[in-house]
Amino acid sequence: MAKIDRLIRLNKTLLLFSLFHGGVLLRIAEIQDWAAGMDFTGLSAFPITPSDENGRVQTDQLQVFLDRLKTVDLGSICLLGSTGTYAYLSRSERRRAVGAAVEGLGGQVPLIVGVGALRTDEACDLAQDAAASGADALLLAPVSYTPLTQEEAFQHFRAVAAATDLPLCIYNNPGTTHFTFSLELLERLAHVRCIKAVKMPLPAQGSRTADELSRLRNALPEDFSIGYSGDWGCAEALLAGADAWYSVAGGLFPEIAAQLTRAAQAGQTDDAQRLDAQFAPLWALFKEYGSLRVIYAAARQIGLTTCDAPRPILPLGKEETRRVAEAAEHLA
Amino acid sequence: MAKIDRLIRLNKTLLLFSLFHGGVLLRIAEIQDWAAGMDFTGLSAFPITPSDENGRVQTDQLQVFLDRLKTVDLGSICLLGSTGTYAYLSRSERRRAVGAAVEGLGGQVPLIVGVGALRTDEACDLAQDAAASGADALLLAPVSYTPLTQEEAFQHFRAVAAATDLPLCIYNNPGTTHFTFSLELLERLAHVRCIKAVKMPLPAQGSRTADELSRLRNALPEDFSIGYSGDWGCAEALLAGADAWYSVAGGLFPEIAAQLTRAAQAGQTDDAQRLDAQFAPLWALFKEYGSLRVIYAAARQIGLTTCDAPRPILPLGKEETRRVAEAAEHLA
Repeated sequence: MAKIDRLIRLNKTLLLFSLFHGGVLLRIAEIQDWAAGMDFTGLSAFPITPSDENGRVQTDQLQVFLDRLKTVDLGSICLLGSTGTYAYLSRSERRRAVGAAVEGLGGQVPLIVGVGALRTDEACDLAQDAAASGADALLLAPVSYTPLTQEEAFQHFRAVAAATDLPLCIYNNPGTTHFTFSLELLERLAHVRCIKAVKMPLPAQGSRTADELSRLRNALPEDFSIGYSGDWGCAEALLAGADAWYSVAGGLFPEIAAQLTRAAQAGQTDDAQRLDAQFAPLWALFKEYGSLRVIYAAARQIGLTTCDAPRPILPLGKEETRRVAEAAEHLA
Repeated sequence: MAKIDRLIRLNKTLLLFSLFHGGVLLRIAEIQDWAAGMDFTGLSAFPITPSDENGRVQTDQLQVFLDRLKTVDLGSICLLGSTGTYAYLSRSERRRAVGAAVEGLGGQVPLIVGVGALRTDEACDLAQDAAASGADALLLAPVSYTPLTQEEAFQHFRAVAAATDLPLCIYNNPGTTHFTFSLELLERLAHVRCIKAVKMPLPAQGSRTADELSRLRNALPEDFSIGYSGDWGCAEALLAGADAWYSVAGGLFPEIAAQLTRAAQAGQTDDAQRLDAQFAPLWALFKEYGSLRVIYAAARQIGLTTCDAPRPILPLGKEETRRVAEAAEHLA
């Protein structure tokens, strides 16, 4: 792994050298994005982070998930997203998880790492840990306890973006962070160095994703990536032209989720909708019980982990687990 | 301090011995409550926990707040409430803060300690830390990231209540925890060993606190304490018969807040309303900027601290700070 890392670094150096001598001026950050293949497009798969009841990450079990993911043609893997229970893990355990992932993936798939934390200094530390471990990009949620103002979120994002040279994706998910980004704030953030992408929640029921996407495209820079999470609405979002799908299901069923992504992004509506329909029973369970509880039950059913989500989150009951097993059967 | 602790323990032992020999049967928990004077009534003052930009608690500055509080006849002091930024502090810093407070208060005022944490095992550890340091009671918030089910919150509270013998107050504040207790859940929790009190948020605008209080009284055990937070509505709550006022302003202006509490609990409506009116400019600022930002600005103005709230929370601007200084002038 260390060798591959060195090779990549050497390539970056050679590239910089030849560009310099070719008289071409490119921002180093852009070269780094390109070199890492990190453009926040396509399917981003969010695996769970298996951990024991004391919050100790089980890196051997994490490796099982990553092995499954790295054989598929993904846009990226996002470690320590909400599904990866980042909010429940200590700094040292998060560092252990990132270290194991970088080593396990061997640079085969770009790795985004979630660095959300309540305090700004903590989030900066986590960002630097991730960069030092070899992550390719960061995902930052405006985790809140005291509700944040728009200006507080702006300063928080600016500080974390300045803590490393890695490209950063804004994690916009009011359902867990309880913070709502104004369009004006997204515009401001999109012009901060290193902030390159946003992961949007699905628009309110009754609104069309296409309409929202076109409003966002008008407001944000041309090369700014706009992706969606909320798995049950992501086929629609991709068909409407979203750049990326940040996916819970993709972390466990990467093959079929990647097929869906490719079909939708190629404008093959029928294929995309056919594949999306295969997920329908899973989407119904996600909406009923929350995707975290369902994906843990599915991962246990398939035999990929013996871990449960961190308490106070409870495992699903017997009947719900039976439904999850049924929904997962033809997806694995 | 250790000596006082031993004296209290000795008194408890003697009391138990004599009660046993008198043939009187009392639950040990009740004796402990009585011995500690911990009945969750009257004014509970919530001081800030001054800490530096790296989350290191400044115990000398904390002592300044506690010295100010312990000269007043309070129901209790609650360390590490929301105003005490518990959510932003590490386990070791929280332990340092509790140790300093127990020593500084010397048993003169009952001490409640906030032990909220995202993970159940962490909250249990914090509860045991607080008990070992000599706290008299616990305050537990259902902190959430993944939204919790009612059953998950129940199991979480049951586990933490079982972790020590200290009486525990349920911290019900959807504005920060994003969890809403059903009346049924409060009923279940009120019958769990050691769970003795609830700190309610103000009812929705347009609803009368008296109506809610009577619904709660009907549902909960007779000796279960029902108190309120949301300073601007607490005079009304106390006049309606609430047992306690969990107060941000009380942490900084204990004298006048205690006068208000006594007047309201004695049914002296005119006096209570007159004192409440003195707080009116502060309540307006609390509602406009959030009580945490305002109380930090006020504490700095009065010269009690040089610390700011943890980032990403930002200090108030110049004009807002001027308004805070004005509101605080005749309260300090």
